[in-house]
Amino acid sequence: MNYGSTKLRDEKVFKDPVHRYIHVRDLVIWDLIGTKEFQRLRRIRQLGTTYLVFHGAEHSRFNHSLGVYEIVRRIVDDIFQGRAHWNNDERLVTLCAALLHDLGHGPFSHAFENVFQLDHEQYTRQILLGDTEVNAVLQKVAPDFPNKVAQVIAKEYPDPRVISLISSQIDADRMDYLQRDAYYTGVSYGHFDMERILRVMRPRQDKVVIKQSGIHAVEDYIMSRYQMYVQVYFHPVSRSAEVILCNILQRAKHLYRQGYTFKQAPTPFIAFFLEQITLAEYIALDESILFTYFQLWQQEDDVILRDLSSRFVNRKLFHYVDFNPEERQADYERLQALFKQLGLDPTYYFVHDTTADLPYDFYRPGEENAREPIYVELKDGSLAELSEKSALVQAVTGREQRDHKVYFPKELLYESNNKISELILSILGVKTHRSK
Amino acid sequence: MNYGSTKLRDEKVFKDPVHRYIHVRDLVIWDLIGTKEFQRLRRIRQLGTTYLVFHGAEHSRFNHSLGVYEIVRRIVDDIFQGRAHWNNDERLVTLCAALLHDLGHGPFSHAFENVFQLDHEQYTRQILLGDTEVNAVLQKVAPDFPNKVAQVIAKEYPDPRVISLISSQIDADRMDYLQRDAYYTGVSYGHFDMERILRVMRPRQDKVVIKQSGIHAVEDYIMSRYQMYVQVYFHPVSRSAEVILCNILQRAKHLYRQGYTFKQAPTPFIAFFLEQITLAEYIALDESILFTYFQLWQQEDDVILRDLSSRFVNRKLFHYVDFNPEERQADYERLQALFKQLGLDPTYYFVHDTTADLPYDFYRPGEENAREPIYVELKDGSLAELSEKSALVQAVTGREQRDHKVYFPKELLYESNNKISELILSILGVKTHRSK
Amino acid sequence: MNYGSTKLRDEKVFKDPVHRYIHVRDLVIWDLIGTKEFQRLRRIRQLGTTYLVFHGAEHSRFNHSLGVYEIVRRIVDDIFQGRAHWNNDERLVTLCAALLHDLGHGPFSHAFENVFQLDHEQYTRQILLGDTEVNAVLQKVAPDFPNKVAQVIAKEYPDPRVISLISSQIDADRMDYLQRDAYYTGVSYGHFDMERILRVMRPRQDKVVIKQSGIHAVEDYIMSRYQMYVQVYFHPVSRSAEVILCNILQRAKHLYRQGYTFKQAPTPFIAFFLEQITLAEYIALDESILFTYFQLWQQEDDVILRDLSSRFVNRKLFHYVDFNPEERQADYERLQALFKQLGLDPTYYFVHDTTADLPYDFYRPGEENAREPIYVELKDGSLAELSEKSALVQAVTGREQRDHKVYFPKELLYESNNKISELILSILGVKTHRSK
Amino acid sequence: MNYGSTKLRDEKVFKDPVHRYIHVRDLVIWDLIGTKEFQRLRRIRQLGTTYLVFHGAEHSRFNHSLGVYEIVRRIVDDIFQGRAHWNNDERLVTLCAALLHDLGHGPFSHAFENVFQLDHEQYTRQILLGDTEVNAVLQKVAPDFPNKVAQVIAKEYPDPRVISLISSQIDADRMDYLQRDAYYTGVSYGHFDMERILRVMRPRQDKVVIKQSGIHAVEDYIMSRYQMYVQVYFHPVSRSAEVILCNILQRAKHLYRQGYTFKQAPTPFIAFFLEQITLAEYIALDESILFTYFQLWQQEDDVILRDLSSRFVNRKLFHYVDFNPEERQADYERLQALFKQLGLDPTYYFVHDTTADLPYDFYRPGEENAREPIYVELKDGSLAELSEKSALVQAVTGREQRDHKVYFPKELLYESNNKISELILSILGVKTHRSK
Repeated sequence: MNYGSTKLRDEKVFKDPVHRYIHVRDLVIWDLIGTKEFQRLRRIRQLGTTYLVFHGAEHSRFNHSLGVYEIVRRIVDDIFQGRAHWNNDERLVTLCAALLHDLGHGPFSHAFENVFQLDHEQYTRQILLGDTEVNAVLQKVAPDFPNKVAQVIAKEYPDPRVISLISSQIDADRMDYLQRDAYYTGVSYGHFDMERILRVMRPRQDKVVIKQSGIHAVEDYIMSRYQMYVQVYFHPVSRSAEVILCNILQRAKHLYRQGYTFKQAPTPFIAFFLEQITLAEYIALDESILFTYFQLWQQEDDVILRDLSSRFVNRKLFHYVDFNPEERQADYERLQALFKQLGLDPTYYFVHDTTADLPYDFYRPGEENAREPIYVELKDGSLAELSEKSALVQAVTGREQRDHKVYFPKELLYESNNKISELILSILGVKTHRSK
Repeated sequence: MNYGSTKLRDEKVFKDPVHRYIHVRDLVIWDLIGTKEFQRLRRIRQLGTTYLVFHGAEHSRFNHSLGVYEIVRRIVDDIFQGRAHWNNDERLVTLCAALLHDLGHGPFSHAFENVFQLDHEQYTRQILLGDTEVNAVLQKVAPDFPNKVAQVIAKEYPDPRVISLISSQIDADRMDYLQRDAYYTGVSYGHFDMERILRVMRPRQDKVVIKQSGIHAVEDYIMSRYQMYVQVYFHPVSRSAEVILCNILQRAKHLYRQGYTFKQAPTPFIAFFLEQITLAEYIALDESILFTYFQLWQQEDDVILRDLSSRFVNRKLFHYVDFNPEERQADYERLQALFKQLGLDPTYYFVHDTTADLPYDFYRPGEENAREPIYVELKDGSLAELSEKSALVQAVTGREQRDHKVYFPKELLYESNNKISELILSILGVKTHRSK
Repeated sequence: MNYGSTKLRDEKVFKDPVHRYIHVRDLVIWDLIGTKEFQRLRRIRQLGTTYLVFHGAEHSRFNHSLGVYEIVRRIVDDIFQGRAHWNNDERLVTLCAALLHDLGHGPFSHAFENVFQLDHEQYTRQILLGDTEVNAVLQKVAPDFPNKVAQVIAKEYPDPRVISLISSQIDADRMDYLQRDAYYTGVSYGHFDMERILRVMRPRQDKVVIKQSGIHAVEDYIMSRYQMYVQVYFHPVSRSAEVILCNILQRAKHLYRQGYTFKQAPTPFIAFFLEQITLAEYIALDESILFTYFQLWQQEDDVILRDLSSRFVNRKLFHYVDFNPEERQADYERLQALFKQLGLDPTYYFVHDTTADLPYDFYRPGEENAREPIYVELKDGSLAELSEKSALVQAVTGREQRDHKVYFPKELLYESNNKISELILSILGVKTHRSK
Repeated sequence: MNYGSTKLRDEKVFKDPVHRYIHVRDLVIWDLIGTKEFQRLRRIRQLGTTYLVFHGAEHSRFNHSLGVYEIVRRIVDDIFQGRAHWNNDERLVTLCAALLHDLGHGPFSHAFENVFQLDHEQYTRQILLGDTEVNAVLQKVAPDFPNKVAQVIAKEYPDPRVISLISSQIDADRMDYLQRDAYYTGVSYGHFDMERILRVMRPRQDKVVIKQSGIHAVEDYIMSRYQMYVQVYFHPVSRSAEVILCNILQRAKHLYRQGYTFKQAPTPFIAFFLEQITLAEYIALDESILFTYFQLWQQEDDVILRDLSSRFVNRKLFHYVDFNPEERQADYERLQALFKQLGLDPTYYFVHDTTADLPYDFYRPGEENAREPIYVELKDGSLAELSEKSALVQAVTGREQRDHKVYFPKELLYESNNKISELILSILGVKTHRSK
C-alpha cells in the first residue's frame, strides 16, 4: 500500500472540548501533526489579544487546526463519500489543506502582518513548498502533492468544492472558530447546529450547496457569526491591546533603523525590521519570543518602547472613544498637535483604528468585493442564493458596520492635569472627573 | 469610607466559561487584579505540560485564580453572611487570599520546584509581603493586612475556617480546578453539583461543615477528583514531557556550574542555577522565557541540552513502560549500564518517575500524613467524619495508588538497532518490532 | 408575623434542568404549589401537540410555571431590591402572578379555546377569584390580594412594571419558555444569555428598561424567539395534529348537538358542547381525560369521529401542502367539491390553516396591534426604542411571516386511487407516485 | 430487494436532546415506530411517579426506546460492522429488539406489575408474537423474525452478544436511561463518556468486551448508575407516591371482588381485577386512563379509595420514616394495632416498603443471583473481570444497600391529635410538634 493511503493500525483520538473527539486514521495526517511546523502552532494564540478581555480565550491555533481538520473529515467521510459528483480522490488533499490552512500564521497575526507587511497565507504556502518537515511528509504522498495542497490554500485548486470546504462563506474554518472561540471565551453566542449543517451539505459538480431543509441552521450560523464579530472579535479593549502591540513593533523597527543600540540585541526581529525574511526566520518566531522581548524592553532606555512594552505586559491599556477622523478632520489635527504639546508622540499615543481594517467579511453577494454566495438547493433541485430565501440573512446582507475609535493613555493626561489635557478630553467628549 | 470597604461604582464582571460570570464589587479586588504580579499569572499555565496530551488545556493560572475568588465570594456573600458563628470581618481577607493563593507559582511549577528546590507557597508569601504592587494595594487596607493574607496562605491564620475555604479537602481551589481543568481538557469527569455543595456548607465555630443532605454531591466531587487525577493529572504522556523538562533544566544548571559557555547567556536562569534568587528575579521568570530559551538551546553545542530542548519544543517525547526500580533493583542497575554502553547518559535518558511525587493528597483522615477530614453535620446537629457516612468514600479512603514508570527515548534505541538495544527492550518487556 | 411575609424555616429547592434550582422561601408560594389547581398543571403539556414532532417535548405547564416564578424571583430579589423606583411591597404580588399566570390553561390549550370559544386568561382570573384552594391561600395574605393578582393577569394592575415582568415583549414567561422548550425539544435555538439580561434590567418609575450594555443579549433573545417560532412552534406536523384534534372536538360537539348516542356518554365534555361551563367543570378537564375519550371514540359508530380519534392516538396525521385559499379561491372551492365527491367531508378532511391564527406576536412597535416596545437605557440615561439601536432587530421588526397550508389525508386519496384523487393532487401540486 | 434490507430514500432523523439526533435508515424500523403499539409508549412515563419529586421527569418510554435503538445502531453500524467475529446478519434483529424492548410496559409499570402479578417482559413477547401491528411488520421480514426478536427479549437468542447489547450490566438500555433520566430530572449525576465506551466495545466470539483503555469510562458509568439509584430512582417521595398508587389499585380490586358498586364502572380494569387479561385489554391500558379513573374515584363512596385517589392526583403524599419491621417486629405489630384504633386500616395507611423490591441490580459477579460480569480485554488479549482491574468498582461490588421505610399519613394523625397519635409518633421517633 502506498503512503498516502496507509491507515494507522489503531485509530488515534484527541479529546477535544468542542467536537468531543478528533479522529485520525491516516498515517499522513498523524505524521503532519508531529512535524515541528505544526507543533509551532501551539505557541500562537488563536485570538491574539482577546484573552486580555475574555480571560478564557487562551487557546492556540493548534487547537483550532485540529478542529477544522475534524469537521472536513466528517464532511468528506460521513456526508460526501459515495455521493454522485464526489470523487473520493480529493479526500486526502482536502484533509491536509484543512489541517494545515493556518500554518503560516505568525505571532499575534494581524498586528504582525500590519507592521511588517506580511501575508500569512503566502507563508503557509512557503511552508508547504519549502524545506520543512511538513513538505517532507507531503512529498512522500507524491512529488506534486505539496503543490496541490498549496493550490487549495491559494484558492487555485481545480476543484472549487475542495477550496470552498476550507475557505468560503460557510466553511470548516469558520464553523470551527465560531464554536471554539465561543467555548473558550464562555460567551453564549457561537452556538449553532453544526451537525445539521453538515448533514445537509451536498456536493454538486462545481460547488457545495445546502439543502433547503437546513436553511434555518445556516441562518443561525450567520447570526452567531455576526454576534461573535460584534461582541468578541471587535471588542475595543482587545483592539486597544492590539494598537499598543503594533506600536511596540513599529517603535522597535523605527529605533533599529535609526541605529539605536538595544541593551539586548533584538536578534529574532532583525530580519523583520530589515524586511528581508527567510522562511526559517519566519518560522522561528512565536509568541513566547515576543513576550520575552516585551519584558526585556521594559528596561530599555527609549521611553516610548519602555512604556508601551510595560503597558502590554502588565495590561495597562489605552482608553478609547468613538471618533471618526474622516468626519472631524480639523479636530483630529488639532488633537494631534495638542498631544505633541503634552510631549506625547501622537504616532504612538493617539491612534485611530477602525474595525474594517480587520477581516470583517460579512455576507455581501454581488458587490465589488463580492464573495461567492451560499447556495441553497431547493426541493426541485434548483439553486437559490441564500438571502433570497431567508429574511433574516437578507436583513444583514451587505450591511457593513464600520466603527471608528481613537485610543490614547487617558491616565497620562490626568497626570499632566493641565489645561491642554482638559481641552483634549473636552474635544473628545470625555468627562473630566476621575472615576472608578 | 476607608479603602478596604470601598465598592466600585459599577460592579465589574468577567465572562468566565466555568462560572459564567465572575463578579467584582470591591475596589481592593479590582486593584489586585490590575497588579503586574497578578497579570503575570497569565503567562503560567494551570496544568503545565498537560496541554501536550489534552490540547485544550492551555489555560493559565490567572484564569483559575479568578475562579477560586468567585467561589469563595459566593460562599461568603451568599451562604455564610448573616449566619451564626460567621463574622463578616473575615470577608476581605478571605477574598484576597482566594484570589492570590497561586501568586508564587513559577513556570511549569512542579518541574521547576523539583529542580531548583523551591516552594511556591513560600514565594506567594514573599510577594504578599515584599516590595510589590500587590503588597502596596494590600497595605492600603491596613498595615498588617498583607501579613493576614500571608497567614492564610501559610495556614497560620487564627480563624481555621478562612484557611479551610482556600485549602482543605473540599476547598474552593479544588472545586475550581476540577471543573476548570475538565472544561478545558474536554473530559467528561470533573462535573459535580458545586451549587449544591456551596448551599450545604455551614460555618461552625471552628470549622466549615457539610450538611448531611449534601453528602451525595460531596461523594460525586470526590469521585470526580479521583478520576481527574488518574485520567488527566497523572497522564504518562504529560509526565514524559515533565521528565524531559526537568532534565533540560538540570542539564543547563549542570553545564553552567561546570563552566560551559552558552551561545546565548542564560541570564534569567543564572540566579536559579546558583540558588541565590531575589524576589524580582523569581517574578521575572515566566513560561515565555522558558520557551524562548528552549528554542535557543536547540542550537547549543552540548548534545544533550540540544536534544532535550528540541524534544520538548517539538513534542518528541520519551516512551514509557511500567517498571518499579525498588522491586527490580538488579535489572534497574543493569539497564543503567546498558544505556551508558549505548552512549546515552541514564541521568537524562532513562528516568524513573512515580506519581506519588506529585501532590496526590487523597482522603486519609487519621494517618501520619493526616489531613483534616471533611465533617458532615447530621440532622441532630452532631458531626461525623465523611467516610463513616459514605460507603463510596470509605472505599477510596486511604488507598494510595502509586505508579512507577521509566521513561526513555525508544526511537533512539531503534536507530542504534544493535544487540544492546534489543536486550534493553527485552528486559523492559517492550516488543521490539517497530509499529505505528 | 403575618402570613404574607412568613418564611419557610428551611428554604425548599426544586431541581430544575433549565434554571438548575428553583428556590422557595415564602410560605405563600409553597402553599400555592401544593394546591390542586396548581398540581393540575402537571396534566397539561406545555407545548400541546409538539411532542408528536419533537418527542422530547413532553413537559408540562407545571414545569414552566415554576420556571417563570424563579426568573421573576431572581429579578425582584437579586436585581430590583434596594434600587431607586422599586417598592418591595410589590414583591409578593409579582411572585404570585408569575407562578399562577398559566393556571387557566385547558388541555391542548389553543385547540380547545378555538373550538369552544374560551379564553384561558379569563379562566386564570376565575380560578384566582373563585371557590378554589388557590383563592383560599391568597385570601390568607389579605382579602383583596386575590384581586391584585388577577389584576396583573388582566394587565390592569396599577404598577405597569409588575405587569411587564409577567407579560411584555421581554418577560419572564417568554424567557422561561424559550429556554425550556429548547431544552426539552433538544433544538440548538433558544439559547441566550438570560443571566446577562436579568442583570441589565432596571426599574424606572413606569417601566422596566434594559441598560444599553445588554443590547446584544437582547438581540440574541429575539433571534432565539424568531427561530423557535419558525422551527418549533409552527412546525407543520404539529399543526397537522392540532387540525385533527380540533376536528375531533368539533365532530363530537356536532354529534352531541345532533342527538347522536355515544357508546360511552361524553360526560366531562357535555358542559363544553353546550357552552355552559362551570369553573369546577373547567378545572376537572385535563389531557388524561381527552386521551381516554379519544381511545374510547375509536370504537364509536360515527366513521369520522372514529377515524379522526384513531389518527390522533396512533399518530396517523394529515399530509400538508402550501396553499392559500385567498389567492386561489376557485381552486379551493373546486377542491372542496372534489373531496365531497370522494366521500370525504372537507370540513374534517380538507382543512386550511394559517400560522397567524396562533399567537405570533412579533416585535412591531407602533402598529395597529402595537405592543409596548422594549426600551433601552442609554449611557446618558435617556431611553431609546430597541430597534433604533439594533440593526438586527430592526430587520425583523414588523415582518409578519404568514404561512398558509391545507391539510388532508393523502393516503386515503391513494386508496381511492381514481381520477378524482389524481385531479386533487394535481391541483395541489403534489406528485402522484407513492414514495417513502 | 427484500423488505428487511430496504432503506428509506431519505434518512429520517428525530431531534433528541440526549443523543442529538436519532437516525433511521431502515424501512422496518420506520414502520415499527409508526405502529400503534409503539406509539402507545408515548402514554407511559419512563420514570413512573418520579415526576412528583423531580418535576422535569415527565418523559415517556417512547423517548427512551428511540434512544436505546440509536445507541445499538451506533454500536452495530459504527463499531462492530466489519470486525472479526461479528456477523452483520445479526444487525436487524438487534436493532428491532433494542427499539421494542420496553413494548410490554404497562402504566406505572412497577406498581402495576406488583398489584396484578404481571411481568412486562412477557407482555413484550406477547406483543411481538400476537395479533398486533408490530407483529405484522416483523412478519414481513421473515416468518420466524418476530420469534427471533422475542428470543432476544427472553434472553434465549443463540448469539449472546445480541442479548448483551440490550440487557447486561453495560447495555444500551442502561446507557440510555442513565443519561436521559439525568437530563430530564436535571441532576448532575448520570454523565459519563458514552462515546468512549462505545468506541472500546469489541465483539468476541461469545461476548462483548471492553478494551482496557476504556476502563475509566466504565468506572464513571458505574458510579453514575450508583448515584442515580440512590438519588433519583429510590427517592422516598417518589416511593411514597408509588405506595399510594399500589394501594389505590389494591383497594379498587378488593372492592370489585367484594361486589362493591362503582359510580362509574371500572371497565378497563375489570380484566385485571379478575386476573384474566387478553392482550388487547393489556395494550388498551395507559396512564391517561389511570389518571382519568383516579379523578373519577375521588367521587366514590368508599372512603379509602376516595382519599387515596385524591392524594395521588393532588400530590398529598404519605410521610415516611426509617423503620425495619424485621428488626422491630413487636413495635411493628403494636403500630399496626394503634393505626387500627385510630380507624386507619394499616393495609392502606401504614405501609412498609424496601428499595430491594425494586430492580436494584448492582454489580455482583459470582453470587447466587449472579450476573454476567463485565469483561475487560487486556492489552495482551486476555480477559479480566472488571472489578479485578478497578479499585473503585471493587469497592461497590456486591454491596447491597437495602433500605426500609414505613409510609403513613402524618397529617391525619395530627388531626386526630390524641394520645394514640402521640404514641405512634413516639414509637416511630418522629418529633410531634407541627412544623413547616
